[in-house]
Amino acid sequence: MTNKEALTLLENGLVSKLIDNTLLVCDSTEKDVSAFLEESLKYEFASVCINPCWVSFAKSVVNSRIAVSTVVGFPNGANTTFVKEKEAYLALKDGAEELDMVVNIGKFKSNDLKYIENEIKLVKNIAGNNVLKIIIETCLLSEDEILRISKIIEQSGGDYVKTSSGFSKYGATIEGVKRIKSAVSEKIGVKASGGIKNYSTLKDMVYAGATRIGTSRGIDIIRESNL
Amino acid sequence: MTNKEALTLLENGLVSKLIDNTLLVCDSTEKDVSAFLEESLKYEFASVCINPCWVSFAKSVVNSRIAVSTVVGFPNGANTTFVKEKEAYLALKDGAEELDMVVNIGKFKSNDLKYIENEIKLVKNIAGNNVLKIIIETCLLSEDEILRISKIIEQSGGDYVKTSSGFSKYGATIEGVKRIKSAVSEKIGVKASGGIKNYSTLKDMVYAGATRIGTSRGIDIIRESNL
Repeated sequence: MTNKEALTLLENGLVSKLIDNTLLVCDSTEKDVSAFLEESLKYEFASVCINPCWVSFAKSVVNSRIAVSTVVGFPNGANTTFVKEKEAYLALKDGAEELDMVVNIGKFKSNDLKYIENEIKLVKNIAGNNVLKIIIETCLLSEDEILRISKIIEQSGGDYVKTSSGFSKYGATIEGVKRIKSAVSEKIGVKASGGIKNYSTLKDMVYAGATRIGTSRGIDIIRESNL
Repeated sequence: MTNKEALTLLENGLVSKLIDNTLLVCDSTEKDVSAFLEESLKYEFASVCINPCWVSFAKSVVNSRIAVSTVVGFPNGANTTFVKEKEAYLALKDGAEELDMVVNIGKFKSNDLKYIENEIKLVKNIAGNNVLKIIIETCLLSEDEILRISKIIEQSGGDYVKTSSGFSKYGATIEGVKRIKSAVSEKIGVKASGGIKNYSTLKDMVYAGATRIGTSRGIDIIRESNL
């Protein structure tokens, strides 16, 4: 989806289609996950995003009525490439349709660009036609690093550059989203996530260039957008 | 090591032997990891604990002069059991001697005790004689839950119950360590970690029952203990 298409959805009141409704806290119970999925099914979210250990359960609950996304190497990205590959493979096998993977920030900051290019390419190879979003954790990067890593992600086959895990110092910022947008073509998406708790912030992010929003407040935001 | 043995080390000024000197922030560069390891080699730490992507590099630097430990399913523990097994297997193959794995907190709170017992048993089976510490994230658990999960860990073959990842709401508390200690036998260890930044806190944790301390301030603490 281009940013123009995202803006059109926003203008037409179809905000749900921009949102990955998200539940990634690690102490959610099966009951919590189940309730989250049932509530989410009432809206046309882009996807529901849950932890890997719940993917097969989620698929059995939603039964293809909504796309299921999950995370890889989350939230620190400091796993081995091999483990990220296995996690991606298993998530798809369990039924996930989209993967949000954290880049290896330490290797990037070590200027080991081959390492991160190779990792993204290998996981994209596993993902195939499934969407692969790459989390860069903008709060840990300089402005120049955000530009450079975003370009590497596009060149390596990532489908989205995503701002934040939601588990680091802070989440998406307008400046971060604009910077990512300035580095990549219209062919790939920009996902803003972390700290997006209301409709006003969501709109700011889309105006800044985001084409997807990750938030645990998806339903509240939709309600607010209808007021 | 029993708590009595840990107290004896403390009394004899051998505090380093109680410490896993730890560097788990996700944006550490190769240079940071290298400097951390070189500095750590000057002291007799129980181990150096680093992220999985640095284990083989760390082994090449320390060359068996100090034990290398790493993390599994870290810090959220919400990966699949399969991925935790693969991560443990690869870490050992890369040369890690100790593994700190986060328990699946959501499955525990869902009362799916078979799931967590099975996961610990499978990973202990892979670890063999290598030490397997299980992180329970005490800040997310009730007092009763700390007791129950500690007992399950001992029954399932865990070698240590560890309080915290250092990435959640807060880290080790005296009360949390005491509670774990009251639930397990002398056969398994108690590792306190998260927020232990000085010698006074380290001593409090050992007096409360800890037999191992995880901290990123290992060297500062040793210097302080020598004053």
